[in-house]
Amino acid sequence: MSAGAKSPLTGGIKESNSGGTSAQQFAKIGIKAMIIEGMPKDDKWYRLHVTMDGVTFEDATELVGKQNFAIIDAMNAQFSKKIGIMSIGVPGEERMASANISVKDPDQKIRSHGRGGLGAVMGSKKIKCITIDSTGAGNVETVDKEKFRAAAKVFAKAMFDHPVTGEGLPTYGTNILINILNEAGGLPTKNFRYGQCDHHDKISGETMHETIVARDGKPKHGCHPGCIIQCSQVYNDENKEYITSGFEHETVWGLGANGLVESLDDIARCDSIMDDIGIDSIEGVVLLSTAMEAGVIPWGDGKECIRVLRDEIGKATPLGRILGNGTGFVGKAYGLTRVPVVKNQGIPAYDPRSVKGIGITYTISTMGADHTSGYTIATNILRGGGFVDPLKKEGQVELSRNLQITTAAVDSTGMCIFVAFPVLDIPEAFTAIVDMLNAAYGIELNGDSVTDLGKAVLKIEHQFNLDAGLNNAHDRLPEFFELDTVPPHNAIWDFTPEEIDEFWNF
Amino acid sequence: MSAGAKSPLTGGIKESNSGGTSAQQFAKIGIKAMIIEGMPKDDKWYRLHVTMDGVTFEDATELVGKQNFAIIDAMNAQFSKKIGIMSIGVPGEERMASANISVKDPDQKIRSHGRGGLGAVMGSKKIKCITIDSTGAGNVETVDKEKFRAAAKVFAKAMFDHPVTGEGLPTYGTNILINILNEAGGLPTKNFRYGQCDHHDKISGETMHETIVARDGKPKHGCHPGCIIQCSQVYNDENKEYITSGFEHETVWGLGANGLVESLDDIARCDSIMDDIGIDSIEGVVLLSTAMEAGVIPWGDGKECIRVLRDEIGKATPLGRILGNGTGFVGKAYGLTRVPVVKNQGIPAYDPRSVKGIGITYTISTMGADHTSGYTIATNILRGGGFVDPLKKEGQVELSRNLQITTAAVDSTGMCIFVAFPVLDIPEAFTAIVDMLNAAYGIELNGDSVTDLGKAVLKIEHQFNLDAGLNNAHDRLPEFFELDTVPPHNAIWDFTPEEIDEFWNF
Repeated sequence: MSAGAKSPLTGGIKESNSGGTSAQQFAKIGIKAMIIEGMPKDDKWYRLHVTMDGVTFEDATELVGKQNFAIIDAMNAQFSKKIGIMSIGVPGEERMASANISVKDPDQKIRSHGRGGLGAVMGSKKIKCITIDSTGAGNVETVDKEKFRAAAKVFAKAMFDHPVTGEGLPTYGTNILINILNEAGGLPTKNFRYGQCDHHDKISGETMHETIVARDGKPKHGCHPGCIIQCSQVYNDENKEYITSGFEHETVWGLGANGLVESLDDIARCDSIMDDIGIDSIEGVVLLSTAMEAGVIPWGDGKECIRVLRDEIGKATPLGRILGNGTGFVGKAYGLTRVPVVKNQGIPAYDPRSVKGIGITYTISTMGADHTSGYTIATNILRGGGFVDPLKKEGQVELSRNLQITTAAVDSTGMCIFVAFPVLDIPEAFTAIVDMLNAAYGIELNGDSVTDLGKAVLKIEHQFNLDAGLNNAHDRLPEFFELDTVPPHNAIWDFTPEEIDEFWNF
Repeated sequence: MSAGAKSPLTGGIKESNSGGTSAQQFAKIGIKAMIIEGMPKDDKWYRLHVTMDGVTFEDATELVGKQNFAIIDAMNAQFSKKIGIMSIGVPGEERMASANISVKDPDQKIRSHGRGGLGAVMGSKKIKCITIDSTGAGNVETVDKEKFRAAAKVFAKAMFDHPVTGEGLPTYGTNILINILNEAGGLPTKNFRYGQCDHHDKISGETMHETIVARDGKPKHGCHPGCIIQCSQVYNDENKEYITSGFEHETVWGLGANGLVESLDDIARCDSIMDDIGIDSIEGVVLLSTAMEAGVIPWGDGKECIRVLRDEIGKATPLGRILGNGTGFVGKAYGLTRVPVVKNQGIPAYDPRSVKGIGITYTISTMGADHTSGYTIATNILRGGGFVDPLKKEGQVELSRNLQITTAAVDSTGMCIFVAFPVLDIPEAFTAIVDMLNAAYGIELNGDSVTDLGKAVLKIEHQFNLDAGLNNAHDRLPEFFELDTVPPHNAIWDFTPEEIDEFWNF
């Protein structure tokens, strides 16, 4: 599922992908996109109900003030569990810039349109919930079923064959990256002061895997009906009771390393609350470590993070509003200078000084600091599609540019970003995507059209931002990355403005 | 006195003028400018002590947490009352974007380097206070004393002769404007919903004058040693006890009309607290009416405004930090769309729809919504220097441009903005300023050099902003001015972006 709007967090363009079941429900009904404009003239809250008969506006008064899991419970009491549900918690109602649009997954849990504050946009339109019920619809049509199946088979094989998508992600989830980044000296620790974390073993993917297995959780779990990677998981507590799923590297990093919280269970509970109240789990953890920088939360205090998420942000108290409006907002409220944001969006789990390619992606991304828009970790660290030394400036702009172009194109297909790993290394995987698109829609794309599509998307997004008042002065990292070196490599951010701006010369 | 820095409020350039006694102390010592760079490596607070022997850094630990009047008391206990004092209250310590640098006046009260958050800049440098003691210094030297005196005499006569500077301002203060703007339909009321205020008589300059006289206050009061206009006053309470001075139209408008507070005494107490805690009294009142818009403070509740200023902003609570960071910050914290700011700075006391010239000044000013940078009220409403119909678009860009150029030049001399009234109408007044400058410094300026100076200043400021990432997308009023008409004229903001951008073609 893709959702987009002007971002209340960055002031620029925002497009965000999510798993869950809503996309399939829309597709079955035959709806490819839904555009929501304006806002109600009255002061009521609404639920949009989407069926084969169209869209109706239902009174949502009884849902106001509820968080996501309670909304799912209320809808499950009223409808089949098969319907798609997109909803916002209290932070979205209160138009906080970290709010997600949350999407129900196949197990009645939450996936998220994260980053950029799309939940605040939904809240501004007084839409608490969208329910999508495809009852009576047939299957999604493809123009050439045989060709599609053949290409899908090649594609699936590549996914299973590649060590990242076939083994690493399904076994350890994205959190496999904790030890890898720690080893590389690129795991930001204590608000980007260090590149390695002493207690990395307590929060690593390996530890998470062992914990899940020991507690009868599930190391593998799909976030949407068609997923063949299954990087999600079911993480239980000591009593083998469910805590969370979709428990990602960035969340574990942000509280575990960057906020010095040593308890994986505390971090899992924070993750669950962020799903429930519906805030972005990257912005959420970066704003919490920034609150630690401000002295509002003691360093490493996971229990206080739980309380603050649930009772401050979740209840929209004044402190909750400061925090829930994101990392940059916390930085301004407390007058800090060490505030890890680009275009006001929190910087994720990879230090841009010791993994310089991702620094270029952070600065340039049209959506603020966003590792997914050009995930150079693949090549800088995981050596997918070649290798570019993460500690040197050479080749990083080109690497980030090529990845951002490809990613923009792949994003347009609705594919998960993780298909990039096989695509970078296995030529057939890339061809198979093109073949699937051609078979599905009866079109005639080739490899070049994909690149052209990616370039066109980036340029349109960039122009949107320029028109919105952003410019290359916003394509910069915070000053502290240029002033403070990060151990163990004593790396520093040393790109000139001109070198960064070179990105757009294509 | 002039103070400047990059603004924490707007992200652009900031220069702010203030009365008080510090300028004279600096001048006597022979210091024309003091540049403060960097910040201390330790976590201590400092007082800079400036004397004929130089500058020393004194420990200011005992001043931390004190507001401005307590700082003045502490310094008066230690030094002669003649020394200059510049200080910040708790909001400045806490780096709030509405914080002023406060300057002691001749009566041990406060004048302010307002707008733009310069107090936060001083706080970021851990300077709580600057004391300037000119003991041992002679008088300020002028190159040609006779010529200077002769020109000053001509200038003073023009000031006394002009009805605004000779009679209106000394009698009623700037608050003479309440009834004038109300009559013109340009007095923003209830967060810019209306152009007239039902209870304008309760808050007008005429009522203020009568109240001051009845309570043995002073209608006339100079904010610095050399002032010949004396638009300040001493406003007492019912028991003839001092409440405040420097009680301006914008402050009275912001709470009285825009926030619907009917008690002039409540507004005066708010003014006094804003002086004490050291926040800008324009940003302060606009953020309070925005807090009313958000439902945080009931409309018209002056007592709650007093409490919020003193106990929330003054004590840097979470709510206080939301408010103390200014109107735009309040708007974001509560997800509002009716937020009167340009470049994140609160819009002052004149509706840009019904006084369109000032709208151009708000959009273009390099320092965010700033009426003083090109005060078209002089011509649109007071008919100084001619007349341009405030309700029509024609001639407003030219009017604002000419006034901004002249104002930038006059600001550079250190003159009070109110000299503009005689300068617009009495040719000798303008010539006298040029003559005074030539006599004081032994230079050879003429009328054209003044205009050239003003143009150069504007262009330098504009370039600073462009380099800082601002651009013409930021030279715009909030959308609600284009959507909602304002009674009684049902005026709307109807300038196109191209018409606004025309300003910079000089």
